[in-house]
Amino acid sequence: KMEKLVNKIQSDMVSALEEIEGPDGGKFLHDSWIREEGGYGTSCVLQEGRVFEKAGVNITIIASPAPKAMIANMRARNKDSIDPNGNYKMFVAGVSMVVHPHNPMAPTFHANYRYFELRDASSNAKDSDKPVAAWFGGGCDLTPSYLFEEDAVHFHKVIKDTCNKHDPEYYPRFKEWCDKYFNNVHRGERRGIGGIFFDDLEDKPADQLFSFVSDCGNSLVEQYIPIVKRRINMPFTPAQKEWQQLRRGRYVEFNLVHDRGTKFGFVTPGVRIESVLMSLPLTARWQYMQKPEPGSPEEDLIKVLETPREWV
Amino acid sequence: KMEKLVNKIQSDMVSALEEIEGPDGGKFLHDSWIREEGGYGTSCVLQEGRVFEKAGVNITIIASPAPKAMIANMRARNKDSIDPNGNYKMFVAGVSMVVHPHNPMAPTFHANYRYFELRDASSNAKDSDKPVAAWFGGGCDLTPSYLFEEDAVHFHKVIKDTCNKHDPEYYPRFKEWCDKYFNNVHRGERRGIGGIFFDDLEDKPADQLFSFVSDCGNSLVEQYIPIVKRRINMPFTPAQKEWQQLRRGRYVEFNLVHDRGTKFGFVTPGVRIESVLMSLPLTARWQYMQKPEPGSPEEDLIKVLETPREWV
Repeated sequence: KMEKLVNKIQSDMVSALEEIEGPDGGKFLHDSWIREEGGYGTSCVLQEGRVFEKAGVNITIIASPAPKAMIANMRARNKDSIDPNGNYKMFVAGVSMVVHPHNPMAPTFHANYRYFELRDASSNAKDSDKPVAAWFGGGCDLTPSYLFEEDAVHFHKVIKDTCNKHDPEYYPRFKEWCDKYFNNVHRGERRGIGGIFFDDLEDKPADQLFSFVSDCGNSLVEQYIPIVKRRINMPFTPAQKEWQQLRRGRYVEFNLVHDRGTKFGFVTPGVRIESVLMSLPLTARWQYMQKPEPGSPEEDLIKVLETPREWV
Repeated sequence: KMEKLVNKIQSDMVSALEEIEGPDGGKFLHDSWIREEGGYGTSCVLQEGRVFEKAGVNITIIASPAPKAMIANMRARNKDSIDPNGNYKMFVAGVSMVVHPHNPMAPTFHANYRYFELRDASSNAKDSDKPVAAWFGGGCDLTPSYLFEEDAVHFHKVIKDTCNKHDPEYYPRFKEWCDKYFNNVHRGERRGIGGIFFDDLEDKPADQLFSFVSDCGNSLVEQYIPIVKRRINMPFTPAQKEWQQLRRGRYVEFNLVHDRGTKFGFVTPGVRIESVLMSLPLTARWQYMQKPEPGSPEEDLIKVLETPREWV
């Protein structure tokens, strides 16, 4: 069921982005691969399109024995039902996307939803048995180079409405988690204006959680596409483009220094490094001691990154 | 003594690079700062010069009580003479430089030398007492976008000659260490064509090791400047410039994912993040599934990065 969902989320976003590119615009390249250890994936990547500098929408399905190191790691995360000496098979289905538009007025978008389950692989276990452990994780966040409050409000409102259909506590809890997670601690600034983030979600029956994650995934187009449509034709200066490049540099810093998904990718056997790093922008810039002018739109953004706001 | 040496190394390299920039070229900005916890530093950075895209030459002097976490970390590195409950003051003097030229035919250069010492800070210890622990670390390496064998041979020969004056085992040992260390393991390729790298060097009397590190530092100009001089006026195509940008992306990956210096910087109290990250290039690029043409100069470089060569 989750496998079907991540496929649908991928194809919806790919269609929505290709529609914006238009008939003469960029097209997504589709790469499918088989994971030798069990599973498969499809990476859809668009580079140097008319509107988008780089966009990647990946799905990964893993179905294989669970490595001992992973079991140990899970137990460390309070999964007490897992026997450290047990024999397990794991199933993971996930979708992950990052969209970097050319226009510095249009924000970068990221989202990622995944389901993880462990089943007993001993000879007397039946496939119909309940999984030993199962949870959902994911989230979505927006990274503007220039802050448009109406975009931030729209983005957070769509997310909050989706969350509220399932649990009124979800949005405030996951919004805070997102602000905490997407944080370049070494800079003292967040990556962007947040969204939601959660992991190890297993506090409700799996079908209810699936329904929540499914609604989250199905609202991604509505979260992002209206925003990107109203920004992609705005005029901008070379200095504004350069500011975007500096923000892209910070994006790279987060993904390479802090992101758990990247780290997980680096240590998972049989992983495809190009798919892990497709989230990086096409171009980025680092400039020594670059400080925005006081009172400038660039400084306005930094203030929000230093102190996250409530948008809805 | 080491403090004087790192100052000299910094000023020699800054002068050599400014001479190449010429009278109408870029100049280094000098930033000095005081570390509240004890010590000081000077960062010299040149950005968007005539010849150099970005060059940074930093010195750092730390003189302060040693944090407990650092003591624990050192003991884990077999410094058995250190008492985990001891009261120590540390002294660190280091110089660190990275040079990224505009011309893709001219290689990026990095070098870094440091001295570390711990002294007993208890009331009955005298300043004239021998340090409880003291060692040297450092190295230098070259990162070309295009491989010129004569450059690689020149670079390694100068280094080997310097090493041989002190110990014939140094060059082979430290060359291998360098190839092992500057490795983007997640890519299966080294960052560049190597050089030397060593840490925790304390196998000889401190004055002999100082003399070795001093010779290393004083040969940096001779290692790099003749190479950069013969490459900076070579013609190049936009495609070659783009290849350089991709190589810069790999440089960023190494520095943010693997480099111990960056990690040390991220966790040291009172550190100046802009000085830690001055090693990053001004611009970089990531391109999904970019593969060099078979038989091209780009592929020649990759082969050397995958399997390090003996140059001298």
